[in-house]
Amino acid sequence: MNAEIITIGDELLIGQTVDTNSAWIGKNIALHGIQISRKTAISDNEDDIISAIKEAFQRVDFLLLTGGLGPTKDDITKKTLAKLYGCGFRRDDGVTAHLENIFARRGRQMLEINKQQADVPEVCEVLSNEVGTAPGMWFDRQGKVLVSMPGVPNEMMHIMENRVFPRIKNRFKTPEILHYTAVTVGVPESLLSKRLEEFELTLPPHISLAYLPAFNTVKLRLSGHADNADSLKSEIDGYFNRMCDVCGDAVFVREDISPVKYIARQLIQHKTKITFAESCTGGFIANQLVMEPGISTVFRGSIVSYSNEIKQQELGVPASVFETEGAVSETCARLMCEAALKKFDADIAVSTTGIAGPGGATNEKPVGLIYIGIATKTGSFVKKYHLFGTREQFMIRAANCVMQLLKSVIENNLKI
Amino acid sequence: MNAEIITIGDELLIGQTVDTNSAWIGKNIALHGIQISRKTAISDNEDDIISAIKEAFQRVDFLLLTGGLGPTKDDITKKTLAKLYGCGFRRDDGVTAHLENIFARRGRQMLEINKQQADVPEVCEVLSNEVGTAPGMWFDRQGKVLVSMPGVPNEMMHIMENRVFPRIKNRFKTPEILHYTAVTVGVPESLLSKRLEEFELTLPPHISLAYLPAFNTVKLRLSGHADNADSLKSEIDGYFNRMCDVCGDAVFVREDISPVKYIARQLIQHKTKITFAESCTGGFIANQLVMEPGISTVFRGSIVSYSNEIKQQELGVPASVFETEGAVSETCARLMCEAALKKFDADIAVSTTGIAGPGGATNEKPVGLIYIGIATKTGSFVKKYHLFGTREQFMIRAANCVMQLLKSVIENNLKI
Repeated sequence: MNAEIITIGDELLIGQTVDTNSAWIGKNIALHGIQISRKTAISDNEDDIISAIKEAFQRVDFLLLTGGLGPTKDDITKKTLAKLYGCGFRRDDGVTAHLENIFARRGRQMLEINKQQADVPEVCEVLSNEVGTAPGMWFDRQGKVLVSMPGVPNEMMHIMENRVFPRIKNRFKTPEILHYTAVTVGVPESLLSKRLEEFELTLPPHISLAYLPAFNTVKLRLSGHADNADSLKSEIDGYFNRMCDVCGDAVFVREDISPVKYIARQLIQHKTKITFAESCTGGFIANQLVMEPGISTVFRGSIVSYSNEIKQQELGVPASVFETEGAVSETCARLMCEAALKKFDADIAVSTTGIAGPGGATNEKPVGLIYIGIATKTGSFVKKYHLFGTREQFMIRAANCVMQLLKSVIENNLKI
Repeated sequence: MNAEIITIGDELLIGQTVDTNSAWIGKNIALHGIQISRKTAISDNEDDIISAIKEAFQRVDFLLLTGGLGPTKDDITKKTLAKLYGCGFRRDDGVTAHLENIFARRGRQMLEINKQQADVPEVCEVLSNEVGTAPGMWFDRQGKVLVSMPGVPNEMMHIMENRVFPRIKNRFKTPEILHYTAVTVGVPESLLSKRLEEFELTLPPHISLAYLPAFNTVKLRLSGHADNADSLKSEIDGYFNRMCDVCGDAVFVREDISPVKYIARQLIQHKTKITFAESCTGGFIANQLVMEPGISTVFRGSIVSYSNEIKQQELGVPASVFETEGAVSETCARLMCEAALKKFDADIAVSTTGIAGPGGATNEKPVGLIYIGIATKTGSFVKKYHLFGTREQFMIRAANCVMQLLKSVIENNLKI
């Protein structure tokens, strides 16, 4: 079954806010057998809201709205929905009690605009919002369901997970949809597609392959739909395995998780203590790992040695290295990871030194040059890369290169 | 003048990719007098693409498409546009030469699907793409302009900046649109709105105020449109200053930049050397600063002291502190920032120690508790916060709290 998303808010159109909500909804609602067939972003304008809803209801029977439910004057979704459904407002007792509770806990006085958040159109069912002040609303009229939720991401997610997903099952007949994803690192999209050309021709009409490139990773996604869950699963399983086999070494992980998350999981599982000595990546790679809960069992600390002085003082890189080969060199990267391994008593240490740009380049050392060092108790090695893109892209690409090196070392039982 | 964006790609609908392109377009095209009035995301499906384009052209005369231009089979935008405009293809010599050049440089062999990227619908003008393989396309028929660009963010940006923006001026008559933004930290949206209630009533119809909350910041955006640039500028200037005065201390910075970028700029300008000793934030705050180009003049290095052992070994926090008050304590935060100040010979040092969650909490120390320490050569202090949200939100909120503390210390000439 198809559904559409309408996001409401000028901030999305003028680009002050990136819409992460629809991606989350698209991903998670698929597990409940619903495909998002269109997303529309419109401004906080009554006519636009009403016409977008009417147009969408000509295509689908299920519509998810986010945004425009704040307490301030610029938020008009609730008022507009009451107009659309031709009804008045009622103050909801449950929401009022919840709001009083929140304000008491935070020790803040409740203003009239806060109290008004408990006012909802008479014909809707309240979807209570335990993590925020604006309730969600469920409208079910003439065979068409409309859900309105706040645009604050964690509030929207809370309402979807606890109020909307459970209701979908009762309200709609949904077919089975499955997505299988493999993440590849380091091989360009067009080469992957060449390798997969014959495989693609074998796919039946209800299973499709998509290429999702991002920096130096490409996600390969097989999507299928059918009425019978079990037969679809075993069918798509078979195609997925064949696809991964064709791609060989390019496949980093056979599920839809980031290379960082995969490596974090491996490190935790094998109790492999890791550390970092980062120059050009300035803590980015350590921080990527720290974003994974539970990492404290294998990550005790790391150093950001951005300047030559700190590389010398904290990691013992001799001044002569900076004078001869420079800080962006194989020798420096090797000495940095070897020193970090000892300093933080780790099983594996990673170092980075390079030119993230936009400044700092020379003729011999262009923006994008990076040396990545890896040390374990059995030895060390350094790899040189030329990465391209902005400063931020440089960091992400560098992190992916590090994850690839870590994967190979972990699979080799830390032997170098 | 209004324009619409249509993004094409299943990955956007099933949520595998977050659409950052439309936010960038919305923000940057506004500077050229064009407002994005609607964004629509659709799948790689011929009927959907054609109907979305036709619908949009009933509302606006200018349409920006992104996505679906890759070399692989799932990308059908180019073919669909040729069908829509009822024309065939021609192989473009300029694009062919550019592709041959790229493949030669990368030392890769050119496949037939790569060569086909130079095939464009006969009626379009090529918008050459120097940073990628798929060219942009400009269609101008019956008073309606359609631009098709790759979905890869840096390629889209390159084409917009170098090909589309210069053409807008020649092709359309555009009114003046101005957005003025102030960023506030630490005051909830509803309280800000209460403070600004009277101010809002004084705004003329062509100037509007929007509240854009994100974690513990709220952006306040004044938007105005008029035919005359100069008079609009001075008018909106006046309202903006009044708005900021009403908000007082809550205003962190009177322009649309992140608190981190503002602090990085201040540090560089005043040559204030900074360092970090991060526990719970695991390098996040140092890395936020390092994302700013030019930071190397004031940032030499920092430590991530995630475990107690590293806090003891690298920062000299005595074991007795962990046994009595624990690592998440005021004393530990104070000792950490004081030690980091000396270790990295900085003018200002920041420490963090807390419970990022989801694990690690106790009855006395809940998830979200964080102590932030600040040390300068004149002394040190620690502030305690209770932050809420996910692990990632915890990091962002903590960074904003750090920026607030840094701002006050920098404004006080580093005197504590």
